[in-house]
Amino acid sequence: MSYNLISKKEIEDAHLRIIPYINQTPIMSSQQINNIFGCEILFKCENFQKVGAFKTRGAVNAVFSLDQEQKKYGVCTHSSGNHAQALARAASLANITAHIVMPNNAPKVKVAAVKDYGGKIYFCEPSQDAREELLKEVMEETKATFIHPYDKLEIIAGQATAAKELINSVSDLDMIIAPVGGGGLLSGTALSNYYFSKNSLVIGAEPKNADDAFRSFNSGEFVSAGNPKTLADGLLTSLGDFTFPIIKEYVDKIFTCSEDNIVKSMQLIYERMKIVVEPSSAVALAIIMENPDFFRNKKLGIIISGGNVDLEGFFNTFET
Amino acid sequence: MSYNLISKKEIEDAHLRIIPYINQTPIMSSQQINNIFGCEILFKCENFQKVGAFKTRGAVNAVFSLDQEQKKYGVCTHSSGNHAQALARAASLANITAHIVMPNNAPKVKVAAVKDYGGKIYFCEPSQDAREELLKEVMEETKATFIHPYDKLEIIAGQATAAKELINSVSDLDMIIAPVGGGGLLSGTALSNYYFSKNSLVIGAEPKNADDAFRSFNSGEFVSAGNPKTLADGLLTSLGDFTFPIIKEYVDKIFTCSEDNIVKSMQLIYERMKIVVEPSSAVALAIIMENPDFFRNKKLGIIISGGNVDLEGFFNTFET
Repeated sequence: MSYNLISKKEIEDAHLRIIPYINQTPIMSSQQINNIFGCEILFKCENFQKVGAFKTRGAVNAVFSLDQEQKKYGVCTHSSGNHAQALARAASLANITAHIVMPNNAPKVKVAAVKDYGGKIYFCEPSQDAREELLKEVMEETKATFIHPYDKLEIIAGQATAAKELINSVSDLDMIIAPVGGGGLLSGTALSNYYFSKNSLVIGAEPKNADDAFRSFNSGEFVSAGNPKTLADGLLTSLGDFTFPIIKEYVDKIFTCSEDNIVKSMQLIYERMKIVVEPSSAVALAIIMENPDFFRNKKLGIIISGGNVDLEGFFNTFET
Repeated sequence: MSYNLISKKEIEDAHLRIIPYINQTPIMSSQQINNIFGCEILFKCENFQKVGAFKTRGAVNAVFSLDQEQKKYGVCTHSSGNHAQALARAASLANITAHIVMPNNAPKVKVAAVKDYGGKIYFCEPSQDAREELLKEVMEETKATFIHPYDKLEIIAGQATAAKELINSVSDLDMIIAPVGGGGLLSGTALSNYYFSKNSLVIGAEPKNADDAFRSFNSGEFVSAGNPKTLADGLLTSLGDFTFPIIKEYVDKIFTCSEDNIVKSMQLIYERMKIVVEPSSAVALAIIMENPDFFRNKKLGIIISGGNVDLEGFFNTFET
């Protein structure tokens, strides 16, 4: 198997497959943000996607691509983030079981959300080894199909549909920017650009504190993420066996940004655009902030990855 | 002059007048919020309006309704809130001067925003008397036309266009809910419902801590707001000579809500809808929270009034 196994038709099929179960998210812009940065930015708002993140696209595509035999045994994954919720929801739509391995320190709201979608949760110690070990046990016991959070062709084809919708709506983008963690969104974005646009550059955006994709891309050799510390908690993972080669071939450049600029970008998006985004989403605007000359006067598409952020602290500050 | 001076045609004309200068804001909904409250809620998102609030509609209508003679001398008002920004922007679009009296303790961001739109600012002591006195001086000196924040027919006709757009898009609402402070938005909403729908009830939403409209409406006698304390800082003012009679005749009911439920509603809107709204906007959802039986199984339109909220504290909590 190699990355070119994802054809144009497979992305088109993925889109047709998932359309009944996803939101066609809006594309928004802010004159004020455009003025600040001296470029035109169109935000593809996957924070308004089902379960609040683009992960819904890949999860639905993966679940609805299973054959009848596979569906009998359900699906499984390990995740404490948006993929867990997205997979639990997709499985419930297909009327199959989702077995989700989560660390026992996962936020209560995320555990509750997976449960609400009918997911069956297996708690493990919060380490990569413990996760993988328990997942292996669950797979052996249940025969469920493992749906990797990003390094799986059906997942990549699903995530590709966000950029496909953006390109369908806005044909003359100079560049498309997507955040990169494991690379599911960025590799899908790059493939959609290759098949449906070809005119735009594709740019990855990554926190400086978790710059393994940046280093992998520039050296050509896989660099592991290690154990990074960044506010962009959706971007902690390493590239995968599928995502890295796609990114190497179809992505034009990766920029990194500071934690400070992630927060500043997030604040700009909240205050000027009036939308709620998670830190991982703000990374794309943060690289524009750090590289103004590169982006000046350009027409840019940004994939806003999601809007799942813990606001409890903010609302506790109101005195009632 | 009496309230019935605002005809159907005047609201239609206002809409045509302002359309080039405003956003046709989206109508959004959340399946999760609908499930929680057992009703269908459609949010008319004026947080996505120019300057982040519905106030833009009235301000643009008032400014572009001036005759040539009036335009020479510009406009003036006293406001520390959204009206000040909205009027400064409208004046700059019409290429006339906006003279804005603001209290000297107004938030810096609001002062800066008015300046950015080219407004001329006059600082006064933070009291109602000082405001009015300085405004009077400014008016005498400049001959500028006073654009009251809400108690002015052109303002009410402008604010009415938000509900008009909502009704145009969704014809079969059981009720339309709008927050009430001075009553510009609520009276406009009620008139648009009367002229363009007639099938819906119109409900006002007010904080219990600033329940002067509720008491005025129910007693039939004007009650002053006094000096209320509520998080919903857009709803501190008293009804006016125009807005009260319109509300008395065309509004069906006013509900009040607690400060706790304002915060809870705001949090729900941020977390489930992924949009930024100011506390005044959350009051409409808060009255549904407090009166579930009244609203159950109904199809409801809510006017989200704006999204201008100070998020500095929240973003300071991020450790970078």
